Amino acid sequence: MFRFLTAGESHGPCLTIVVEGLPAGLQVEKALVDADLRRRQGGYGRGGRMKIEKDEIRFLSGVRHGKTLGSPITMQIENRDWVNWEERMNAAPVEAEMETVTRVRPGHADFTGAIKYGQDDVRNIIERSSSRETASRVAIGGLCRQFLAQFGIEIHSHVLSVVNIGYEEERALTPEGYSPEMWEAVEASPMRCASPELTEKMIARILEAKRAGDTCGGVFEVVAFGVPIGLGSYSQWDRRLSTRIGMALMSIPSTKGVEIGAGFGATRKTGSQVHDVLRRSSEGAWSHLTNNAGGIEGGISNGEPIVARVGVKPIPSLAHPLPSVDLATGENIDQSRYERSDVCVVPAAGVVGEAMLTAVLTEAMLEKYGGDSMEEMLRHYRA
Amino acid sequence: MFRFLTAGESHGPCLTIVVEGLPAGLQVEKALVDADLRRRQGGYGRGGRMKIEKDEIRFLSGVRHGKTLGSPITMQIENRDWVNWEERMNAAPVEAEMETVTRVRPGHADFTGAIKYGQDDVRNIIERSSSRETASRVAIGGLCRQFLAQFGIEIHSHVLSVVNIGYEEERALTPEGYSPEMWEAVEASPMRCASPELTEKMIARILEAKRAGDTCGGVFEVVAFGVPIGLGSYSQWDRRLSTRIGMALMSIPSTKGVEIGAGFGATRKTGSQVHDVLRRSSEGAWSHLTNNAGGIEGGISNGEPIVARVGVKPIPSLAHPLPSVDLATGENIDQSRYERSDVCVVPAAGVVGEAMLTAVLTEAMLEKYGGDSMEEMLRHYRA
Amino acid sequence: MFRFLTAGESHGPCLTIVVEGLPAGLQVEKALVDADLRRRQGGYGRGGRMKIEKDEIRFLSGVRHGKTLGSPITMQIENRDWVNWEERMNAAPVEAEMETVTRVRPGHADFTGAIKYGQDDVRNIIERSSSRETASRVAIGGLCRQFLAQFGIEIHSHVLSVVNIGYEEERALTPEGYSPEMWEAVEASPMRCASPELTEKMIARILEAKRAGDTCGGVFEVVAFGVPIGLGSYSQWDRRLSTRIGMALMSIPSTKGVEIGAGFGATRKTGSQVHDVLRRSSEGAWSHLTNNAGGIEGGISNGEPIVARVGVKPIPSLAHPLPSVDLATGENIDQSRYERSDVCVVPAAGVVGEAMLTAVLTEAMLEKYGGDSMEEMLRHYRA
Amino acid sequence: MFRFLTAGESHGPCLTIVVEGLPAGLQVEKALVDADLRRRQGGYGRGGRMKIEKDEIRFLSGVRHGKTLGSPITMQIENRDWVNWEERMNAAPVEAEMETVTRVRPGHADFTGAIKYGQDDVRNIIERSSSRETASRVAIGGLCRQFLAQFGIEIHSHVLSVVNIGYEEERALTPEGYSPEMWEAVEASPMRCASPELTEKMIARILEAKRAGDTCGGVFEVVAFGVPIGLGSYSQWDRRLSTRIGMALMSIPSTKGVEIGAGFGATRKTGSQVHDVLRRSSEGAWSHLTNNAGGIEGGISNGEPIVARVGVKPIPSLAHPLPSVDLATGENIDQSRYERSDVCVVPAAGVVGEAMLTAVLTEAMLEKYGGDSMEEMLRHYRA
Repeated sequence: MFRFLTAGESHGPCLTIVVEGLPAGLQVEKALVDADLRRRQGGYGRGGRMKIEKDEIRFLSGVRHGKTLGSPITMQIENRDWVNWEERMNAAPVEAEMETVTRVRPGHADFTGAIKYGQDDVRNIIERSSSRETASRVAIGGLCRQFLAQFGIEIHSHVLSVVNIGYEEERALTPEGYSPEMWEAVEASPMRCASPELTEKMIARILEAKRAGDTCGGVFEVVAFGVPIGLGSYSQWDRRLSTRIGMALMSIPSTKGVEIGAGFGATRKTGSQVHDVLRRSSEGAWSHLTNNAGGIEGGISNGEPIVARVGVKPIPSLAHPLPSVDLATGENIDQSRYERSDVCVVPAAGVVGEAMLTAVLTEAMLEKYGGDSMEEMLRHYRA
Repeated sequence: MFRFLTAGESHGPCLTIVVEGLPAGLQVEKALVDADLRRRQGGYGRGGRMKIEKDEIRFLSGVRHGKTLGSPITMQIENRDWVNWEERMNAAPVEAEMETVTRVRPGHADFTGAIKYGQDDVRNIIERSSSRETASRVAIGGLCRQFLAQFGIEIHSHVLSVVNIGYEEERALTPEGYSPEMWEAVEASPMRCASPELTEKMIARILEAKRAGDTCGGVFEVVAFGVPIGLGSYSQWDRRLSTRIGMALMSIPSTKGVEIGAGFGATRKTGSQVHDVLRRSSEGAWSHLTNNAGGIEGGISNGEPIVARVGVKPIPSLAHPLPSVDLATGENIDQSRYERSDVCVVPAAGVVGEAMLTAVLTEAMLEKYGGDSMEEMLRHYRA
Repeated sequence: MFRFLTAGESHGPCLTIVVEGLPAGLQVEKALVDADLRRRQGGYGRGGRMKIEKDEIRFLSGVRHGKTLGSPITMQIENRDWVNWEERMNAAPVEAEMETVTRVRPGHADFTGAIKYGQDDVRNIIERSSSRETASRVAIGGLCRQFLAQFGIEIHSHVLSVVNIGYEEERALTPEGYSPEMWEAVEASPMRCASPELTEKMIARILEAKRAGDTCGGVFEVVAFGVPIGLGSYSQWDRRLSTRIGMALMSIPSTKGVEIGAGFGATRKTGSQVHDVLRRSSEGAWSHLTNNAGGIEGGISNGEPIVARVGVKPIPSLAHPLPSVDLATGENIDQSRYERSDVCVVPAAGVVGEAMLTAVLTEAMLEKYGGDSMEEMLRHYRA
Repeated sequence: MFRFLTAGESHGPCLTIVVEGLPAGLQVEKALVDADLRRRQGGYGRGGRMKIEKDEIRFLSGVRHGKTLGSPITMQIENRDWVNWEERMNAAPVEAEMETVTRVRPGHADFTGAIKYGQDDVRNIIERSSSRETASRVAIGGLCRQFLAQFGIEIHSHVLSVVNIGYEEERALTPEGYSPEMWEAVEASPMRCASPELTEKMIARILEAKRAGDTCGGVFEVVAFGVPIGLGSYSQWDRRLSTRIGMALMSIPSTKGVEIGAGFGATRKTGSQVHDVLRRSSEGAWSHLTNNAGGIEGGISNGEPIVARVGVKPIPSLAHPLPSVDLATGENIDQSRYERSDVCVVPAAGVVGEAMLTAVLTEAMLEKYGGDSMEEMLRHYRA
């Protein structure tokens, strides 16, 4: 039973992640998880916080001498900024008068969280609703990626657009559209975009927004290769692989849209233009002539790359803040406040998207193949 | 604990739905559930099956003398076509040689399901992967709608586009954009579209596709009014209201995209253009000047209408079938087969979308307010 | 993902059971499920209801031509008494004045249910809290038993005691203690007890209670043979096989105690007397010299028979009713009421116990071996 | 949605606990959690480890300035012994040749875990299957106890027997049987037993076992006062409060039996002797003349104290080890090994039992009353 919980405030002592259900005997490297954490922290457009935090995990349980034990795995990510927040964020009551946050930022959980949880001090909301929480998810992704690699499954992401800068919509969704070289180019780009020209234009667009005290969103794509035929099911609404991917990707903070395969583009074509023709080679291998389905037919993986796209809204923390309300006074105010933040997080969000897809596929693989140790699971997989 | 399971093959004796967790003492009318079933069956572009089935539910448990008991509610929807399928779909072994289906249709679960479940006869796949299953969901929606009405929550849907015919993308997302009159117009339109002009054009477009042996997809929007502030949470990825809506809507067969609020459109604007300014009236009422967030900020409902859009791909059952493979021979073939079907299901899919949103909100309301009877729950709600 | 829901009132039209997650291609026979339903209805001490109902299932989904499809399986059990209750239990409002039940029976859900669900008419409680619901569970057991048989797993139950009549406590828990002949004797006994002497005495004890307008409880044992080593886990409290068995057996109506292996008897011995010595044969087969652990060590099956005992309280429906309260008047009364009932249900409860253990093992097997079809799962199992 | 995960190896750096779903604004004191941890570590019969570990928690998330935030709460318990195990238990590969454990102890997870998880070194099993894990549960209990106190709910445990020393079986189960003075005596007794005479005899019995290189089990009782009427439900097998208590208590390591109320004793009486007569006072207060039901009727709390008893087998770690098998050689051996351990853990197990009951009641209270902040939840509770 694969499951996980994440915990931790943005300026608390650490993030904590507990992952349960990976088989025993899986070789795991902390360095590979840390590499994913670094990928999340990179990208043009990140703010000052990224310079303070150099995220790395510490395994606190579930791994011994480089291999999983089958027991719950705890990963901890220290918040380096904690030293500056020890009093303000202490678990114990403190003597000092605390400054409270009462001016809510449009687009954040500031208002909704304060009402829901009955809080006067919005600090009590923003510490957990902060996207710092996504570092926990990336750690899970970094772990599960090593699990999926045992089955030849690989996950990548890249940025398709920032505001009005991006690929043309009708970019082909064929497996041939992706190549190792392309993913290398993605990793080399500060925008996580394979095209150097687009990278440059995106950076310029972000810079323009920054100068205006504004922020930028965009679209990223996440792709999984090597997924076997048969993950997910149409048997019940919540067992579809599409359901679970839709859930996982929509859960990423700032996400306002998720597409699978041709997505909304498929609605603008007719059936004969959209559906992917199946072929069988003389050796019995299956393939599709196109991949508008994004690797999922009838809620089940079809052997083609799983392709999904995620629309990320511009960050709500504006250097030129929007009008809002002060919860303490109940007055409408001209400006909410500015909390140190990024200008564009689309490249980072892509890394979070990889992590979420990785978690979905890990669960689906365990469901189909079972097994308490890697050896047993691989025996099942090959049977 | 709100949960449900649906069951039933497309040509089996019936669909069965078990819903658990609604409070006792809720007044429920079968007629209102049946009305939703009829709304799903209507709409221009549906095929012959819709004429055979006049869906209605029968309560088999959980309701007595018009009120819920707090026990699991069973609803049964008879398949009127069953009489013609009794032998072919019998639970017991039959003597007669059965014709098998082996030519898989691109875009359906035919291929993926056959591989996953190890079936030679694709009939064993298509019976459950058929979108007939969505009638079960609509029945759940028809039930939960009556529950939500007790709290003043109302759910609607309408069609935004079919292939290339539809509203301009930048249609405003303000609460003022919706009106009782608009929803009346939607219900009166065979396309479930408030605009008579668009309705007409959409019908023409569907007719064109039909003549070509082709099919049409499109986009629908689903909106919930009266949702209180505070449903959902940022505390864990799977508790966000957006996560749960993304999950529920992506689970609808043929769905390839889901947007909340401004959706992908929000990615093409900057932060200052996207975020919704909060206002507080002198009486203490909260409102937002716009609703690009679609009623959800930080994964929590903000009191504005919940707005989501769903992209539905064109139906894979083409009268002029695409090339494919025959699973029996393993040969690539020029034409898969044609199973009687619709040409366009977008209006119906919208009704399914309402149902799924209704289920999500029902669960979230029960979570926040608790209560074993309607009386108790309303006491909590008003406290 | 193995899961199920049951629904249905005692005097409603039927019981409905939806089971999801069994692999496709499993051969299932209705007759074998019906046989289990009959075993539940038999046994000395059952009341008149058992003569009215001749339970049998009808598959309404998930099975075609004798094999599972991988889709949710619906089983329906008609309530033959329904014809006499159509008005009183109708889902729709009825004109006639209904007699209400207001005198609560000690030991039933009458009082707690009425308070919880805010009901004036205890009829609205007792219809679902009735142990008629356990027929649904037995149907699940009858289905899962056929699944487990594919792996050589067999489940039996027998009655150990009724009131003060029964085996001596220190009955050995060695695998050798059970034999095919013993189980045959159990099935032949109206008390489901292998000893003819005890059977006779138990019947006499029940008759004595019946004459006194009283009721009898007792203890049954449930045993599973052929369970592979490695089901369940100590990794988290809720993954232990013992946890899941404790949960499943304690859920049986009237259950007040559950033991695994030597149970409470183990608390009266020292460690050296209790723990089971492991042996390995020269062929590499594992065995234990005793089975005080009841087949579970550290929350994981150890290859020995799973043995559990369940204490069933005497039925609360007394022909000479106890004092109670009338909810309508709030007055303390000398006698609650008598609803037609059994005198002793311990043999039947044993069949329910089998079903619950069967469900637990089915879930645990699916978890460990995965697989979407029986063929695939058996490949995994044998790998 | 109340849920939690625990993680951590016995000799790893720490135990980690993540608890989610407690309302915001609950005042929580670390000292109260630590007090429970100390209660678990006390009791006559504990081994040397208890002297090394002085357990205390550190809140790493979810609590700020003494109040919960509504976000997941992380508690960490350091393993003080870790300094001696850093190399042997390191997450990273180490150079040194590691001594492996291959002689399995009967009654532990040593054998079952090694087979399940495919491990040669039993160290990889015993680190998580160790009952050190129960400290995590006690921390959860210490937290939830503070939550339940807000509703006047109090949980206690005491030891009924050790081997053959204990209360007579027919000890009355009336609410009057418990008193504040009794619980004070329990806390003062090194055996957590209210009777000084029994305490003395139990200690003597343990000492005798210790001298023989043997171990002792026993029975404890856990009681919850102030539980409102209406928690749990008969609507589905897994919603019964009894189901959830049976599950929670059976999950405690070494547990072989669980009883609710009169338990197995109820099977030896007739119905008229067992069921608890309900009374209503002139002020409208409900009470029962006896409490054989242990506070649960029909799977729902009835307002009386919840009473459950748990049978704990003697610890499997014997100073004079039993015969066993060496997994490395496959040979039957005369003696398994001895790992430093306790002689009797029944008093400690009682504290774990309190924690598990506390968790069950917390979930059930949240389910019935809902609410995102303590203020809101108390409003619901009082409405």
